[in-house]
Amino acid sequence: MMELFLDPDDPRPLAVQLYEQLRTAIAEGRLRPGDRLTPSRTVAADLRIARATVTEAYGRLSAEGYIEGHSGRGSLVSAVPQPARRRTVVAALQPTRRAGAIVPFAPRPGAASEFDCQPGHLDPALFPVADWRRCCLRTLDHALGQYDDPQGTPGLRAALANWVLRSRGVAATAEQTFVTSGAAHAVDLVARVLADPGATVAVEEPGYPPVVAILRSQGLRVAGVPVDEHGIVVEAIPANARLVYVTPSHQYPLGMVMSRRRRLELLRWAGRSGAAIVEDDYDSEFRHAARPLEPLQRLDRDGRVIYVGTFSKTLSPALRVGFLVTPVTLLPALRAVRQAVDWCPPPATQGALTEFITEGYLDRHLRRARRRYGERYRLLRSSLDQLLPAGYRRLPAEAGLHLTVSGPRDAADPDLTPILRRHGLRLTSLRRSYAFEPAATGMLIGFAGLPYQHVVPAVHALSSVLNS
Amino acid sequence: MMELFLDPDDPRPLAVQLYEQLRTAIAEGRLRPGDRLTPSRTVAADLRIARATVTEAYGRLSAEGYIEGHSGRGSLVSAVPQPARRRTVVAALQPTRRAGAIVPFAPRPGAASEFDCQPGHLDPALFPVADWRRCCLRTLDHALGQYDDPQGTPGLRAALANWVLRSRGVAATAEQTFVTSGAAHAVDLVARVLADPGATVAVEEPGYPPVVAILRSQGLRVAGVPVDEHGIVVEAIPANARLVYVTPSHQYPLGMVMSRRRRLELLRWAGRSGAAIVEDDYDSEFRHAARPLEPLQRLDRDGRVIYVGTFSKTLSPALRVGFLVTPVTLLPALRAVRQAVDWCPPPATQGALTEFITEGYLDRHLRRARRRYGERYRLLRSSLDQLLPAGYRRLPAEAGLHLTVSGPRDAADPDLTPILRRHGLRLTSLRRSYAFEPAATGMLIGFAGLPYQHVVPAVHALSSVLNS
Repeated sequence: MMELFLDPDDPRPLAVQLYEQLRTAIAEGRLRPGDRLTPSRTVAADLRIARATVTEAYGRLSAEGYIEGHSGRGSLVSAVPQPARRRTVVAALQPTRRAGAIVPFAPRPGAASEFDCQPGHLDPALFPVADWRRCCLRTLDHALGQYDDPQGTPGLRAALANWVLRSRGVAATAEQTFVTSGAAHAVDLVARVLADPGATVAVEEPGYPPVVAILRSQGLRVAGVPVDEHGIVVEAIPANARLVYVTPSHQYPLGMVMSRRRRLELLRWAGRSGAAIVEDDYDSEFRHAARPLEPLQRLDRDGRVIYVGTFSKTLSPALRVGFLVTPVTLLPALRAVRQAVDWCPPPATQGALTEFITEGYLDRHLRRARRRYGERYRLLRSSLDQLLPAGYRRLPAEAGLHLTVSGPRDAADPDLTPILRRHGLRLTSLRRSYAFEPAATGMLIGFAGLPYQHVVPAVHALSSVLNS
Repeated sequence: MMELFLDPDDPRPLAVQLYEQLRTAIAEGRLRPGDRLTPSRTVAADLRIARATVTEAYGRLSAEGYIEGHSGRGSLVSAVPQPARRRTVVAALQPTRRAGAIVPFAPRPGAASEFDCQPGHLDPALFPVADWRRCCLRTLDHALGQYDDPQGTPGLRAALANWVLRSRGVAATAEQTFVTSGAAHAVDLVARVLADPGATVAVEEPGYPPVVAILRSQGLRVAGVPVDEHGIVVEAIPANARLVYVTPSHQYPLGMVMSRRRRLELLRWAGRSGAAIVEDDYDSEFRHAARPLEPLQRLDRDGRVIYVGTFSKTLSPALRVGFLVTPVTLLPALRAVRQAVDWCPPPATQGALTEFITEGYLDRHLRRARRRYGERYRLLRSSLDQLLPAGYRRLPAEAGLHLTVSGPRDAADPDLTPILRRHGLRLTSLRRSYAFEPAATGMLIGFAGLPYQHVVPAVHALSSVLNS
């Protein structure tokens, strides 16, 4: 009979190892129908294991139809059909063209010798480990629950509604507040509920690539709408857009603030067209100048604005927590879709975050983060203003955790980011923010992940590359 | 001038309160363009607050265009246009018809006086609080990371791959393993990648309602395929189905095991049609009889099967963790979609679960859970066999945490669940598992959430209702 092996370092139970070997041998034809298996007593003695272990393996093979017992003859390999052997090359599963076209993002951890200027990266040293840990410990038992509210726990929703009213003037009740796994996830949910495949949705161009990817993956037609110094050019939004996604506090990536007049114009457009506005306020906690204008959500009188926020910049991208504030007319459908897909947000994280907000730790963390990031912002801004070569200019930004530098007007310029990478600078090319034809060159320089003492050296490295 | 109020119990900063009142007054016309605001010094003295507080409020109103400073005259209400007032009733945002048609599920916590027989509910007393807490504490610092791997942490993927091989014989590598927020979420991801809106997908009928809801919400045509005592009737699967979703270990809701012959037939069908098979192994950890047959994933030679698992039955629905094992050809698209939508699974939960598995706590918990649930299963089974009235029979089930009782063959029978509810029995009607026309009456009786001492009283209550 065939040789059987046992591997003492294999973590799998012995019976499983035996079963696997025999099954594979049968499937691959090394044991053929009618072949007799060695009696279990003999196998056990040879391998110095319990007979019960062998009979368990044989029992499983029998239950699965690989072997049959024949009185007087022991166990024989069955004659039942085997899984179809691969006679022709069957095409392996492939994603749809749409799904295959989504370009992944590749933020990679920076090496120690690099300047980490990737937008979206935060300073891990600023994360309030002790306070967060304290909040987690107090709420660990939330994992005992059954299936929770798809909208999120009432406690967190109330804390979020209160916080976003205080900090941004967003008129939110706990009833209208929906906890998500980030801002992009919020947009994904809203799009699933408001737009059927094939419908048109509008985004700022340049804009935020993950949202474009999401919308396209849902089979929506994404229309890019130009922006000027006041924000999205409302008259250029397609009349049949079901939804328009904007970043009015701090346009991603160019940085301008949508003027109050333009906000009112956008709201009037939405009212006439019956469309929804998704307002993504992604890093408005970090303001460098005066208070921002009222959110669209606050100016909205007709229940057309869904406000989206995230804790990925405010606290940590690792938490995977965001939220949205919705007109109540959309609540039932949002709840139903969420419930079907992944039921609800993880209760334990929600518990910790509720505690973190209501006990004042979030406010404390933000005060500290604003100070630190503010220092880096001012130093980066002045260094860029001093050191950028002619043809490059820093775009003004009232808020946020990155600055955008625009380059010479020739959009055929090569993408400099690989070259910058070789000089130890990790940042993001402006052209990646265009869903269609890039209309400008430049780069986004995040400073939240860049230690203060690296700011000036980073700008020196940048300008030496740009100068050559 | 208008009266200004400060509420000491209002948690909002005073400047925000002042700002809010003035802004609302202007928006509602109680202060009109050209009206002069009381000088800040006067307001401060009247309200006994710092002048800086008042000037902050006034400064914000000015920045937002509500008031303008005029030298010699103080601050006057501006003449800029206000947000468009609601002249006609503008239709509020509504979800699409498809999104609005998703029926929410409403598992509600059972009242103390009720028998909680809802499938999917677990016994909270069995959750290994101390072990889980220990694992959470050891891995709390995972929240410090930046944006993690969309597929999940390498540690958890390796632990899952190893565990699912040991426990179910699924041939998985860490590379093919993908961490999700539950089984339904895994199906949602796979469908987004494998099927374009308008494509046909096949499910068992009766089947699992959340998956039907998900697939429909994506704009897919859902075809219900009948099942017989061996599982899904392969010859009835539409030839153009891109994907078929099955529960072969323990058909939900009817409980049969897909025979080995039928599994091979299904695999041959998928190979000929180029379709994918999604194998949902949702509660196979709780077997009451012999080992189950080999998973489809194991029998699959052509990379057509995506295996889906969840910890919602094995550990707790509150964790929101599931996983899938995929042919590698789908990995790039799955990663890209996940990354765009919610980037990655929450790292802290992943860390705790990795520890929980690798330190043996999961195995220990499962041994205990199997004992406890096994007792309830046997008692429920025998009680039903003794007490069910004529016309009702218990469907055989080799595994899982619920038993299904089928009723008389007249599908026009009323749904008994509201009546049962009035008698303190919370369970699920079989007809809710049909995506199309219900072809049978009956009910699903979960026993994981039902304490042992409640089993017999619950069955007595059930049969008294059925008898009348």
